[in-house]
Amino acid sequence: MSRRKPMKALILAGGSGTRLWPASREAYPKQFLKLSGGKSLLQQTLERLLNIVSPKDILLLTNEQYKFHVLSEVNEISKDLADNILLEPARRNTAPAIALGMKYCLERLGIPPEEVLFVCPSDHIIKPVEKFVEYVKLAEKVARQGYIVAFGIKPLYPETGYGYIKITGKDLGGYYLVEKFTEKPNFETAKRFLSEGNYFWNSGMFVFTIETMIEELRLCIPEIYQLFNQPLEDMIATFPKMPDISIDYAVMEKSKKVVAIPMDIYWSDIGSWDSLYDALDKDEKANVILGDVLAKDTESCLVIGNKRLIATVDLKDLTIVETDDAILIAKRGSAQKVKHVLEELKAKNRIEAIEHRTVYRPWGECSILEEHPRYKIKRIVVKPGASIDLQIHHHWSKHWIVVKGTAKVTIGNKIMHIHENESVYVPKSTLHRLENPGEIPLEIIEVQNGDYVGEDDIIRLDDEYGRI
Amino acid sequence: MSRRKPMKALILAGGSGTRLWPASREAYPKQFLKLSGGKSLLQQTLERLLNIVSPKDILLLTNEQYKFHVLSEVNEISKDLADNILLEPARRNTAPAIALGMKYCLERLGIPPEEVLFVCPSDHIIKPVEKFVEYVKLAEKVARQGYIVAFGIKPLYPETGYGYIKITGKDLGGYYLVEKFTEKPNFETAKRFLSEGNYFWNSGMFVFTIETMIEELRLCIPEIYQLFNQPLEDMIATFPKMPDISIDYAVMEKSKKVVAIPMDIYWSDIGSWDSLYDALDKDEKANVILGDVLAKDTESCLVIGNKRLIATVDLKDLTIVETDDAILIAKRGSAQKVKHVLEELKAKNRIEAIEHRTVYRPWGECSILEEHPRYKIKRIVVKPGASIDLQIHHHWSKHWIVVKGTAKVTIGNKIMHIHENESVYVPKSTLHRLENPGEIPLEIIEVQNGDYVGEDDIIRLDDEYGRI
Repeated sequence: MSRRKPMKALILAGGSGTRLWPASREAYPKQFLKLSGGKSLLQQTLERLLNIVSPKDILLLTNEQYKFHVLSEVNEISKDLADNILLEPARRNTAPAIALGMKYCLERLGIPPEEVLFVCPSDHIIKPVEKFVEYVKLAEKVARQGYIVAFGIKPLYPETGYGYIKITGKDLGGYYLVEKFTEKPNFETAKRFLSEGNYFWNSGMFVFTIETMIEELRLCIPEIYQLFNQPLEDMIATFPKMPDISIDYAVMEKSKKVVAIPMDIYWSDIGSWDSLYDALDKDEKANVILGDVLAKDTESCLVIGNKRLIATVDLKDLTIVETDDAILIAKRGSAQKVKHVLEELKAKNRIEAIEHRTVYRPWGECSILEEHPRYKIKRIVVKPGASIDLQIHHHWSKHWIVVKGTAKVTIGNKIMHIHENESVYVPKSTLHRLENPGEIPLEIIEVQNGDYVGEDDIIRLDDEYGRI
Repeated sequence: MSRRKPMKALILAGGSGTRLWPASREAYPKQFLKLSGGKSLLQQTLERLLNIVSPKDILLLTNEQYKFHVLSEVNEISKDLADNILLEPARRNTAPAIALGMKYCLERLGIPPEEVLFVCPSDHIIKPVEKFVEYVKLAEKVARQGYIVAFGIKPLYPETGYGYIKITGKDLGGYYLVEKFTEKPNFETAKRFLSEGNYFWNSGMFVFTIETMIEELRLCIPEIYQLFNQPLEDMIATFPKMPDISIDYAVMEKSKKVVAIPMDIYWSDIGSWDSLYDALDKDEKANVILGDVLAKDTESCLVIGNKRLIATVDLKDLTIVETDDAILIAKRGSAQKVKHVLEELKAKNRIEAIEHRTVYRPWGECSILEEHPRYKIKRIVVKPGASIDLQIHHHWSKHWIVVKGTAKVTIGNKIMHIHENESVYVPKSTLHRLENPGEIPLEIIEVQNGDYVGEDDIIRLDDEYGRI
């Protein structure tokens, strides 16, 4: 059997969804959530794809804000994945993102235009994986015939949060010509779709050859085609000019080349706490419980604990999510209202709406443990070989206590090594640098002290420390 | 008008109730809870009594475990209160506690036996205070006639958690002869009491002359009378022999001298979260909300936040209580089940069942901020002039960083002064002492580091550091 070049996969991991607040936030979106099994949705997506393609054939598209987090997540799966992480020069929708991914494949990876590309989001739940693999293999074959293949999910209820695909009746061998793509419908329309039949949820995954998609971009959305039709470097430079448009709206709704494979499979885009509850396995009382929870006479609840003990008594149909700095308690079925909570919090400039107490940086991570008007305590983890570069604070000094590993510390023009259980003092208005020269992560407790411990008292000379 | 010696008040503040878990715990019972207005129930009780008697006429009875906390609370109200804090030599019920308080009055305070004593718990809510004061003044007059005066509350519903007082029909001038005292009835009996009338809730407060009560102890409960009938010091020494019996059961149910004043007043013993909800003022949506709470479409809920943001969506009839290490979410009306949660937690040896992350010591307080297998971070506050005495830890060393005030630190045989924003290292297996020589509280961040950070690695030489 002659082997063609293998299919490539493009994972879109730049989304900033906050519908799973307080667990997901703008600075820590849904794809990074480790909700079950200890692996994030992004990692689960990667593992699913590794049943179809090899690590070097996976391209990850994200944006500047998430790059370090994506890098750290992919490294936990396979070091080979780290080579092909591409950053969007600006936040645009899926159509420009896919165009950028294709250009990268052609120019940087030397993939010929007749090659097949599988595009998928990074934050969905799909099971079982074996069945999914078979559908994708079929899609690859169909794509090689010049089609753009979408994947439809048999709708279980009149969901208004998904797009719909209407297929024609004729089975072409597990796939069907698409009659039309429909944007998110209203409830009445969604109900009609279900009763009419031949409508499927649009799962947001597509398979096509690069040349097919280029041609459809040319026909359907010339603005993108023109920006695509230049060298990668120029495309990146002019990327902000790209229209903010989804591939569904830009191409799928207009193209004559679209076919769909209806999948008999469990799929969810985890668009809310309610859909997460639906997606996860329940216990005998219909609860989904993660974390340190004592549930008494509690049924049909989703309880996600983090650090603290959660005791529940006589509850039914609730969503409870605990994080370091915020707790959500909502009626199940009202998850859509979480966005109103977020809007209110943002209007009040509440940091809980934007980021977590732990932020991820190129050199590691930093968590706020305690905040007081006159001091702040942080835990800083520096990766082996990494460093936090020179900074000056004029209003506060800090104490670093090494609780694990060895730190190489530069203060002014002094260089010293601080070992586990040793500490060092960094005075105000002094240049300083923290490095991890060792082979294990360096863990430091930092106690900041001063008359003003706001985060804007950082003059960054080189790299940044993170917002917190 | 000739002035008699003023009435004395005896506040019983030794209770260890945990029905308001997770806010109240064995090590931090209900009387210390600051639930509204920033003052604890004990402090509210003191302020209420200060409308009737002066600070020096108030005697506080508590036990060893709570002494520092009581002292600190009392000092916030009046320094004069601190003189008369009496510790129970062992935990017994209210009858032995009252006997001890009377002996102390007679022997230490030189109060004559014909003097009037007002006895009350430290953890009830009573309003309005003006009306209450009038009832107590009436009770004092009645007590001088040789009666033991109880205070009845008109029952609002067939509560099974309270004792009941049945009065005879004849109004003797705002007070009535008592036909009988009844222990907590079952629901059917309580319903019958309400329909029969002349039954009142027993509020647990009593007014009597010391000589009347002594005589009734002699008649009703000779075991206590005998132990009472010896010098204070001997009474303290033999206190553990006292029967564990309430004054209601020991005296009130048997004595012929009991009268009752029915009070037309709001009273609650805050025996559960449900009764706290009943006792507090509601907002326009019938919510009681304390703390940093964003309530969306939420009604008839009790939400008590502590440090974190709590967002509620589409909730009704829930109790939500957040503390540093535990969160309770219960249906309103199911508050009685909190005790089952506590039992389970105790069976699992969970520290959250017993104490908070902050403990109160004679020298100040200590809070755990962060716990990890290899390190622990605490905030220690030392009162001006106080000290934490010499200790040795064999498995861990610690770093102290002064964030406020000045510390006098003894390590081995070295004595040094550590100022704000300075730090000091305490090595393993070294005697050390921490003192606050200054005039303002000393605040220290302690980072413990070692291969074993269990709290049993403390060899206390002098005083103790607290369990945490």
